[in-house]
Amino acid sequence: MSEARLSADRLLRRLAELAAVGDTGDGGCSRLALTDDDRRGRDLVARWMRDLGLIVTIDAIGNVVGTQPGFDDGVAPVMCGSHIDTVATGGRYDGNYGVLAGLEVIEAVQTAGVPLPRPLAVAFFTNEEGSRFAPDMLGSLAFVGGIAVEAAHDIVGIDGARIRNELARIGYLGGAPLPAAAPHAFVELHIEQGPILAAEGTAIGAVTGVQGISWREFTVTGQSNHAGTTPMRLRRDPLLVAAETAVAVRRIVAEMGDPQVGTIGRIDLDPNLVNVVARSATFTVDLRNTDDALLRSAEARVAEAIEYLAAAEGATVTSRPLARFEPVAFDETVVCLVETVARERGLTVRRMPSGAGHDAQMLARVCPTAMVFVPSVDGISHNPAEHTAPADLTAGAEVLAEVMIRLART
Amino acid sequence: MSEARLSADRLLRRLAELAAVGDTGDGGCSRLALTDDDRRGRDLVARWMRDLGLIVTIDAIGNVVGTQPGFDDGVAPVMCGSHIDTVATGGRYDGNYGVLAGLEVIEAVQTAGVPLPRPLAVAFFTNEEGSRFAPDMLGSLAFVGGIAVEAAHDIVGIDGARIRNELARIGYLGGAPLPAAAPHAFVELHIEQGPILAAEGTAIGAVTGVQGISWREFTVTGQSNHAGTTPMRLRRDPLLVAAETAVAVRRIVAEMGDPQVGTIGRIDLDPNLVNVVARSATFTVDLRNTDDALLRSAEARVAEAIEYLAAAEGATVTSRPLARFEPVAFDETVVCLVETVARERGLTVRRMPSGAGHDAQMLARVCPTAMVFVPSVDGISHNPAEHTAPADLTAGAEVLAEVMIRLART
Repeated sequence: MSEARLSADRLLRRLAELAAVGDTGDGGCSRLALTDDDRRGRDLVARWMRDLGLIVTIDAIGNVVGTQPGFDDGVAPVMCGSHIDTVATGGRYDGNYGVLAGLEVIEAVQTAGVPLPRPLAVAFFTNEEGSRFAPDMLGSLAFVGGIAVEAAHDIVGIDGARIRNELARIGYLGGAPLPAAAPHAFVELHIEQGPILAAEGTAIGAVTGVQGISWREFTVTGQSNHAGTTPMRLRRDPLLVAAETAVAVRRIVAEMGDPQVGTIGRIDLDPNLVNVVARSATFTVDLRNTDDALLRSAEARVAEAIEYLAAAEGATVTSRPLARFEPVAFDETVVCLVETVARERGLTVRRMPSGAGHDAQMLARVCPTAMVFVPSVDGISHNPAEHTAPADLTAGAEVLAEVMIRLART
Repeated sequence: MSEARLSADRLLRRLAELAAVGDTGDGGCSRLALTDDDRRGRDLVARWMRDLGLIVTIDAIGNVVGTQPGFDDGVAPVMCGSHIDTVATGGRYDGNYGVLAGLEVIEAVQTAGVPLPRPLAVAFFTNEEGSRFAPDMLGSLAFVGGIAVEAAHDIVGIDGARIRNELARIGYLGGAPLPAAAPHAFVELHIEQGPILAAEGTAIGAVTGVQGISWREFTVTGQSNHAGTTPMRLRRDPLLVAAETAVAVRRIVAEMGDPQVGTIGRIDLDPNLVNVVARSATFTVDLRNTDDALLRSAEARVAEAIEYLAAAEGATVTSRPLARFEPVAFDETVVCLVETVARERGLTVRRMPSGAGHDAQMLARVCPTAMVFVPSVDGISHNPAEHTAPADLTAGAEVLAEVMIRLART
């Protein structure tokens, strides 16, 4: 038992209350970054922070941090947090859970009067999803000094809106310094958004890091022809090259083994007609690995395969990178602490990488950082059907509480 | 030398004049069936028919036939013809060439005063392309009694227009009986729309028949997942099944050899995003063969492959037929006559099936029928770049003339 007693009811009630802002009516939630719905969500969570007596600071990219008062300025807080913006067809747990669980941890610690030598803090970072503005994880990137404020302010969204204007419009263009002072440590509690914990019946994931991501778009150009009148020997079919590449990606990934994954999720043929051999096929390859050398090897093998396959069909290939993030390794001490705390509480726990990007990977640049995952039913996320059982939500929050308390004592 | 001397200039001039109707400004032509542009094209060609002194009849589906006068009613004509409707991005030769060459043949025969025991006739059939109304080859289908007039009249186009209304609107709802009396023989002169003649440097194709066509749409349903968080072993990726099917189609077709062809020309993923394993993949398989038993075998092998591949990935498959036409064999006597006439004129000639559908396949149901192909530069058709060299156009028309004259004497 932790010294602090969390209220599962309060956590679930706050999750429901926040989910009501931007409610899509199908169990889901839509609060794109810096929209009016995002403002209403922010106002609600900031009010809860102030109701707790936290010092609420807002920086120039709209990140909001609530910190326990009563400590000297130089004492770095143990921070948790995540984001409260969502994708257009978002669920109610992605991001929100980590923020509201952090709020609950601080409330429980304060209620119990647990004496700590450091303040606890909870943050929500701007535009983690990247659905309205690119890049994603923008707020936490700026928080750690990874992008200049002016550059971030000039970013224009999919609807033509500029970040600085939207921040000012919704009242979240704050004055707290950027980059921010580094926390003592950072822990992000999050739903897994994948199927592993749920499939195994494991309660807690001690996240060891974030996979490196390589997104590349390939365009194979062959020759458009009539599907009836063109003999097979005269064809230069870009769809065949794309298909053979998809098969090759699966084979390469299988040969490399876990944690290498590879996905062709998008393909567009031109002209995409039943009776026409396509002129060109444009498709994306998404490769991820926790080891950057292995990720580079996968990239090279896929590129080599597609060049070979295209040449064999008499087609040509061009490509352009869409995104490239190196893997992030979390702090071994904090990862271990998550495992230890989970085991002490009788929870099943496993180490695992995160396949998705998270704000924690930015914070990892400036302080000891790790993440705690809880199961996602059927691995579903970014979807109104996103769900985590209340018992799992509570277990994750209790692990977060104990990890933060122990970190505050180091 | 034929008894009739064709005027290459007049043929080319008429091709250019007809192409000016619906000119797309890029060398191409757009006269969708029963539109105002189609009416202007029809009016022009019907005027040329009347200028030649032909008896012009229009039936209830808008087919227009120009027949030499001065013969007893019971004497069936030797007919040639094709269509003058085009696809939206059509060229100037597809269809038009066969009609205007037929007009030229009759003008030359009349000018030379070649005595024939049967009239010659030239027809253009309604909605051969099928771009506005389905099915394609509708006019010739109705001409031979393959569809009831009422059913044809009720067909609604992609723009919501009904065939009967459009026929009346443009003045081509005629009174000639349907099904029409069978001609003595039918010959369709057409550009190949494929690369074979041009690639070989062969001047004339003696078309032995039309390939059977099987179009089927498959939908593979797997499970949509996050591309980063879902381990490969838990994936049910419909794109992979589609890709493996494309590879299997190429293999099956290669094993079967010419004239079997197979094409996957259309594929749509849902949701088609770079970082999401698709929920479903919908794609089409176009299979063609001149032998129906072999075509059925190809269909069965593809269906078997996709079922196997889907099961291996834990995905499910549904399918629906989009179109199915049995192969058509042309009349051996007329095919031979085309070969003979071409050789007599010192032209290179080869027998070949047609990979595309043509009005001649409908006429083949009621009279001895064949087709004459001329080369398409690079096999390009249904495209503003569609081109056939003037010398090839003239050679084809001269073969048509001599074939029709000889058929009229049998």
